[in-house]
Amino acid sequence: MKLATLLEAGRPDGRLVVVDDDLHRWSPAGAATLQDMLDGAEIARIDEWQPFESSACASPLPRAYQFLDGSAYLNHVELVRRARGAEMPESFWTDPLMYQGGSDSFLAPAEPITGDPDWGIDFEGEIAVITGHVPMGATRDQALKAIRFVMLCNDISLRNLIPNELAKGFGFVQSKPACAFAPVAVTPDELDGWHDGKLHGILRIDLNGEAFGRVDAGVDMTFDFGQLIAHAAKTRDLAAGTIIGSGTVSNKLDGGPGKPVADGGAGYACIAEQRMVETILTGAPKTPFLQPGDRVQIWMEDDAGKNIFGTIDQTVRAMK
Amino acid sequence: MKLATLLEAGRPDGRLVVVDDDLHRWSPAGAATLQDMLDGAEIARIDEWQPFESSACASPLPRAYQFLDGSAYLNHVELVRRARGAEMPESFWTDPLMYQGGSDSFLAPAEPITGDPDWGIDFEGEIAVITGHVPMGATRDQALKAIRFVMLCNDISLRNLIPNELAKGFGFVQSKPACAFAPVAVTPDELDGWHDGKLHGILRIDLNGEAFGRVDAGVDMTFDFGQLIAHAAKTRDLAAGTIIGSGTVSNKLDGGPGKPVADGGAGYACIAEQRMVETILTGAPKTPFLQPGDRVQIWMEDDAGKNIFGTIDQTVRAMK
Repeated sequence: MKLATLLEAGRPDGRLVVVDDDLHRWSPAGAATLQDMLDGAEIARIDEWQPFESSACASPLPRAYQFLDGSAYLNHVELVRRARGAEMPESFWTDPLMYQGGSDSFLAPAEPITGDPDWGIDFEGEIAVITGHVPMGATRDQALKAIRFVMLCNDISLRNLIPNELAKGFGFVQSKPACAFAPVAVTPDELDGWHDGKLHGILRIDLNGEAFGRVDAGVDMTFDFGQLIAHAAKTRDLAAGTIIGSGTVSNKLDGGPGKPVADGGAGYACIAEQRMVETILTGAPKTPFLQPGDRVQIWMEDDAGKNIFGTIDQTVRAMK
Repeated sequence: MKLATLLEAGRPDGRLVVVDDDLHRWSPAGAATLQDMLDGAEIARIDEWQPFESSACASPLPRAYQFLDGSAYLNHVELVRRARGAEMPESFWTDPLMYQGGSDSFLAPAEPITGDPDWGIDFEGEIAVITGHVPMGATRDQALKAIRFVMLCNDISLRNLIPNELAKGFGFVQSKPACAFAPVAVTPDELDGWHDGKLHGILRIDLNGEAFGRVDAGVDMTFDFGQLIAHAAKTRDLAAGTIIGSGTVSNKLDGGPGKPVADGGAGYACIAEQRMVETILTGAPKTPFLQPGDRVQIWMEDDAGKNIFGTIDQTVRAMK
């Protein structure tokens, strides 16, 4: 099943609709909101089909009770550290990095990213899942069974605010503003690329209409979603509607950092990574972070070239 | 106005009720849930009064879209650092510490705290507020005007998991499980002790029926709630229903750490702080963290000795 949430004035949780496989049409769903459905309400297929437009959509959960974002592609973590001359601790291979992210109001998939360019605005292309209830102490297998939907995420990051904020020791607050999700949430059974607790397939990222990333979400993922969820549930239950993110998708090339798409590589799912590779190779970053007017698009296609989740399509706007 | 949420099977957001000033009776409220009210639904006073019991209550917001917890009582931060021989950075006096906490399902005020005693289970007595919508970049004054309700919080912490988790650099996930709030949320206009963006009054904490803390929430609070909210809103909007915590209430004594209640001091709002003072004075902590069967009670009284928010009254239970 594919579901989306239409923006509706005065309804912070929007209106839940069923979307056809081609993302051409939508039809009303019985449950009022996706959270209602996750809480146990039934979906009805009403068969009153209307044309589907991504621009009319909110994020599938316009607001959620929880967003925990992992960092499962360790190549990304290694690169960040290598660019500043630091080793990655051995424990990172067995103990997932994860932070509690903001979830009170996600941006719509076509909503502008508003901020001060001095903050160092960056995108991060990620895979995410929505879980049902997960009991404290759940195993990886129990966790995998609790996955209800798969989504794509743009986890927006303010790079220039991160070093000072992380140095304080309490994680991200100001440096991770509201993120966005692709319009359509898809049940795992409808995804050919869903196996081993991972979504296999190319995550496509364009920056200003040019290919920036063509990274495979199914490889180089050290922790699968079962492991990430079990990590999150070690000391507490996770309520239905919890979103778990994969962290920035990141591929190695011959055991080292990848190359830009323009040079025949898979590219990157965030600007920071391209800057780190530039720093490693030339001593300094070259690619700037996002500026007002810049446009980022994130999507995934199936083997036949069909868009699976719809497209995150955001433009940067300077803060007033 | 005083509001509470009654536990109701099959309704994760419970049932909103109006509570009388003495916390003796409740009456149905028009809005279905506290979040509905924060989203704009009207409250009706239906005048069908019934006896109020704390044990029938959920936390006022049984689940919330956001919980950001500050660390506004710097005495607590200084003590934590001093016990391990570290200085507190100067910037901590101007740049609030804050972390994104879990908010997907809070414990009810009388619900057991379930966990592994080896985790080092501790309570933290805090003041918290619920905000309406706060726009990005809000000033302290705008932030103060957005405060809708004041609450008391038990921010449960797993002390033995904190050092390793914070060393990873991404803040708290496993070491901060679900916390609990006192049964009744109170509008600021009904609180005699609410001024200067702080709640003035003695936060009372008993451990196993003995006075453990009698700390004044109105003093030694370096950042008021307006400053904490403005910090949180620097780079993003805060949705209606955001909870902002004060961090562990902590009083100085003559410019240094306070004394236990048994020694004539104000005591502490968490066990860790008593252990730190023991470590500073004798080289080693003496008081153990919570064990199965231990009971913690947290409440606040007005000048006439009347309970304002009801009591958080939790017993520790070993994980199965």
